[in-house]
Amino acid sequence: MPVTPEQQAEIETLREVSRPTRRAVSDGMEEHLYKAHEVLDHGFIRVIDYMGDDAAICQAARVSYGRGTKSVQNDEGLIRYLMRHWHSTPFEMCEVKFHVKLPVFVARQWIRHRTANVNEYSARYSILDREFYIPAPDALAAQSTVNNQGRGEVLEGDEADRVLEMLNSDATRAYDHYEEMLSQDGQKGLARELARMNLPANVYTQWYWKVDLHNLFHFLRLRADSHAQMEIRVYAELMCQIVKDWVPLAYGAFEDYRLGGEQFSAAGMACLKRMLAGEEVTFETSGMSKGEWREFEAALK
Amino acid sequence: MPVTPEQQAEIETLREVSRPTRRAVSDGMEEHLYKAHEVLDHGFIRVIDYMGDDAAICQAARVSYGRGTKSVQNDEGLIRYLMRHWHSTPFEMCEVKFHVKLPVFVARQWIRHRTANVNEYSARYSILDREFYIPAPDALAAQSTVNNQGRGEVLEGDEADRVLEMLNSDATRAYDHYEEMLSQDGQKGLARELARMNLPANVYTQWYWKVDLHNLFHFLRLRADSHAQMEIRVYAELMCQIVKDWVPLAYGAFEDYRLGGEQFSAAGMACLKRMLAGEEVTFETSGMSKGEWREFEAALK
Amino acid sequence: MPVTPEQQAEIETLREVSRPTRRAVSDGMEEHLYKAHEVLDHGFIRVIDYMGDDAAICQAARVSYGRGTKSVQNDEGLIRYLMRHWHSTPFEMCEVKFHVKLPVFVARQWIRHRTANVNEYSARYSILDREFYIPAPDALAAQSTVNNQGRGEVLEGDEADRVLEMLNSDATRAYDHYEEMLSQDGQKGLARELARMNLPANVYTQWYWKVDLHNLFHFLRLRADSHAQMEIRVYAELMCQIVKDWVPLAYGAFEDYRLGGEQFSAAGMACLKRMLAGEEVTFETSGMSKGEWREFEAALK
Amino acid sequence: MPVTPEQQAEIETLREVSRPTRRAVSDGMEEHLYKAHEVLDHGFIRVIDYMGDDAAICQAARVSYGRGTKSVQNDEGLIRYLMRHWHSTPFEMCEVKFHVKLPVFVARQWIRHRTANVNEYSARYSILDREFYIPAPDALAAQSTVNNQGRGEVLEGDEADRVLEMLNSDATRAYDHYEEMLSQDGQKGLARELARMNLPANVYTQWYWKVDLHNLFHFLRLRADSHAQMEIRVYAELMCQIVKDWVPLAYGAFEDYRLGGEQFSAAGMACLKRMLAGEEVTFETSGMSKGEWREFEAALK
Repeated sequence: MPVTPEQQAEIETLREVSRPTRRAVSDGMEEHLYKAHEVLDHGFIRVIDYMGDDAAICQAARVSYGRGTKSVQNDEGLIRYLMRHWHSTPFEMCEVKFHVKLPVFVARQWIRHRTANVNEYSARYSILDREFYIPAPDALAAQSTVNNQGRGEVLEGDEADRVLEMLNSDATRAYDHYEEMLSQDGQKGLARELARMNLPANVYTQWYWKVDLHNLFHFLRLRADSHAQMEIRVYAELMCQIVKDWVPLAYGAFEDYRLGGEQFSAAGMACLKRMLAGEEVTFETSGMSKGEWREFEAALK
Repeated sequence: MPVTPEQQAEIETLREVSRPTRRAVSDGMEEHLYKAHEVLDHGFIRVIDYMGDDAAICQAARVSYGRGTKSVQNDEGLIRYLMRHWHSTPFEMCEVKFHVKLPVFVARQWIRHRTANVNEYSARYSILDREFYIPAPDALAAQSTVNNQGRGEVLEGDEADRVLEMLNSDATRAYDHYEEMLSQDGQKGLARELARMNLPANVYTQWYWKVDLHNLFHFLRLRADSHAQMEIRVYAELMCQIVKDWVPLAYGAFEDYRLGGEQFSAAGMACLKRMLAGEEVTFETSGMSKGEWREFEAALK
Repeated sequence: MPVTPEQQAEIETLREVSRPTRRAVSDGMEEHLYKAHEVLDHGFIRVIDYMGDDAAICQAARVSYGRGTKSVQNDEGLIRYLMRHWHSTPFEMCEVKFHVKLPVFVARQWIRHRTANVNEYSARYSILDREFYIPAPDALAAQSTVNNQGRGEVLEGDEADRVLEMLNSDATRAYDHYEEMLSQDGQKGLARELARMNLPANVYTQWYWKVDLHNLFHFLRLRADSHAQMEIRVYAELMCQIVKDWVPLAYGAFEDYRLGGEQFSAAGMACLKRMLAGEEVTFETSGMSKGEWREFEAALK
Repeated sequence: MPVTPEQQAEIETLREVSRPTRRAVSDGMEEHLYKAHEVLDHGFIRVIDYMGDDAAICQAARVSYGRGTKSVQNDEGLIRYLMRHWHSTPFEMCEVKFHVKLPVFVARQWIRHRTANVNEYSARYSILDREFYIPAPDALAAQSTVNNQGRGEVLEGDEADRVLEMLNSDATRAYDHYEEMLSQDGQKGLARELARMNLPANVYTQWYWKVDLHNLFHFLRLRADSHAQMEIRVYAELMCQIVKDWVPLAYGAFEDYRLGGEQFSAAGMACLKRMLAGEEVTFETSGMSKGEWREFEAALK
């Protein structure tokens, strides 16, 4: 269970209190606030705070004195125009703060997105909990035979059992030893900043992560993509749902122009025009490399 | 007058509406929201939105499930500790969005602070108003004779009159011509993106500016400093008042450790220790350059 | 003339000196180093320093101990793969430093790209030169009638003369007064930080601008685009030529995937697939807005 | 041994080649280029490339056409002035690229410095080596009894043996299992992106890390500090030596104003002035908290 009963009680206490504000309010986000949405076996995403809504994007784009919005249709048109033309600054005017619990190897990928604010639970200062990510049976996949950084078929039978046994027993032993090293029972006890080095990369950590909507969209485009590692993609996909409830117009534009869109190279555009003119274009006549051609065909499927 | 009656009415309309929220609320900021605080002759600062409060700093520092605060005394101690030891990430967990109207030459200094989000009124797209900054009599200062990038005595009499006359008449003429160039009265009218180049650097622009508390403190430390140009310092000083109402504990720590604090070099520390041991240290025996010694003496005044 | 004979002599002196280095060397950039490439009427771009070359991109992508490159064909494939899949960090491993002289209104657009290092000539500390951008006859364009932030037909005859007359005389008068305000001839002389406010936005400034290759490509994609204002586009286009000489493989990939590429939305992809299946798709049956359809058609022209 | 004979040969090959360049050359850095400086038991720091030298800082600060330097004394004065007054942009004009091999738990602290470019060895794509950080006897310290995030006395005898036994055997077992999970010997072999999760935080990783001098100084100020964890501090201290050889004037200013300097709060300054006036100030009369007073006293020791 990702959240203890005491933590759940703290969350409930927060959710019960409402106060009046003059700021922009998003009903969708108010409903999400503080709740722990479960991810993987022990992880979660919680919305801790947010700033702005769809209207705030238009308000900033128009540098307004008032709310800055016109009709819903007009606002949607503006938001779609801004997204289509890669205007980033109006989307930066919305901000969101999450509390995320995630395995360390996922955290290491995540932190590569630098344009965000992060406060991580400190294992120099505190003791980590005994919680490790162990893949569910359908996530226990073999190395891909075509993609050097992807996964292929699901492992089954003995091989699956053997892998799970190793992951489980090594995590248990590593944590037992972590505790023993820290123990002051008749001993001095190893410094926490050193003992932590014995814990494997599937141990859970947690952090507060704050980001503006433009940079969040960039994160989601890369991490909700089918090529992202599944263990980070599930976090990104859940965030997509949350963002949809927060800024439905902006999310709609993002879905249309980024998630569902396709990018063609100059070479790809040349092929496309020949095809639209009725020519049959093959790999041999495309002028592309194998990888490019494979991706070109996939985009048109 | 920095705000027209129509704009004032839009502001009032915004201020009249309150809605419930589960988020952290700062009473001090709710009072400021949307109001136009006047700066210089036509400028203003308005708070458009904010995220977090003093408690949110502690909540993030503790990576909490609930509010994350303990006693006020305990929270203040934590915030002062974080500030003293240059921990920046918990302060990044608060965010604020301003609407600022300011002369272009001030905007050019301001924008050098890169870690912020900005949406400026576009003079490619829209027409700028006829508003120029003209220094008040006590701000019309001569070049400093000791500081190459500072100002000295106030100009008086004929010289002051002559300068004001030039500033006023050049601004008027430049704006008249700007309008004439744009005019389509029997003409095509010059493109706005070109016509704007005729306007001087004291014309007012405006933008939405969003920044986290850590980077705002950095901005304020440099721009509320006595060496900053007066025309940007007055904006920074007003922001200090706003921040004090928003996060009083964090602002108190900032005031104590940054605004009111002093930095000594290794050489300065060596002198200080000799002085505390009863020795009389002079410029000649200090081992410092003239500039360093002057600043060292000033810090101890 | 953008560079004085004294400045030209300083440049020549720099170019005459060569020293041995163990670092990666780009012959193309060595040829550019320090030269002033003229832009607009008084502006220029000079390469001051650079770090890395095409091989350095591969070296970093492979986290190599040696040069990290394989065959040229292999390296080109890797660079194209990285560009196609939006890998940004290997391109960040190259860096370039420019000295740029440019009108203030261009500088104000330019500086919106925050991920760069900038050192601008200080008009608080120094006195600006009497140099103003005055558009050439073919650049003196009317406001576009279809694009709110663009330009249309070229102005001609009386209207052109009148506009040029105003730009020239206002610049001259503003600079005359700037000098008079600064003058200490029997006076105190207005502070430089104040006097500069009288100068119009077509006065030239200059700065050192340092940026990594990934962020430079982002800048070039937006500013070498046909929708960018001509006065910044000419700087971007010249930089494209320089980058091509510096990292020809990376520039080739950039040209193919970014400059020459097209982005289609989910709606656009749906239309495209119908068209490839032989259906005639019109605006009415496209499900797009007018603007989107116009851009969709343009992409396929 | 941190570098294999094959890697060492690649390094030697690189060091043997010199080519002429017109760029600024730092003799100190040329000597360091590519060499592997050993850190901890298997780590290293290698300089891969650099841009600029002390003169380049002055050149940018003066926005020069030529080298931009005057006498060495004059340049040193300028650099010290810039450092003392927190001017950051001229120092940003120098850049350095390192290849670093370091334990994962150190990498996790390091990456918190966001203003740098990073390319890490990918454990999704490649297989990590069997190399783990095991503390030397004098680094095996107990938890500090006064500092929640520090270490105290060195562990000895049985306790030390027991801890080292656990660290060694767990690392060995984790890596054995990592290899077994990846093995395709009659099996499919677990995906690399999953298998890596079994490895503990003392496994070594490596990356290319590129940063400008201003941000490097910021990193060094925090990480070469006595409160930093020893395992990152040794990297920072070695970098200090490298930077000293690269930009001796800038490093001298950094050492004087940052590393060797002290910061006093407003409260601290008030006490200091009383002490200089001959008063004896104690904790009770200082108005400071215990922590502040302890640090105040330490600064004056």
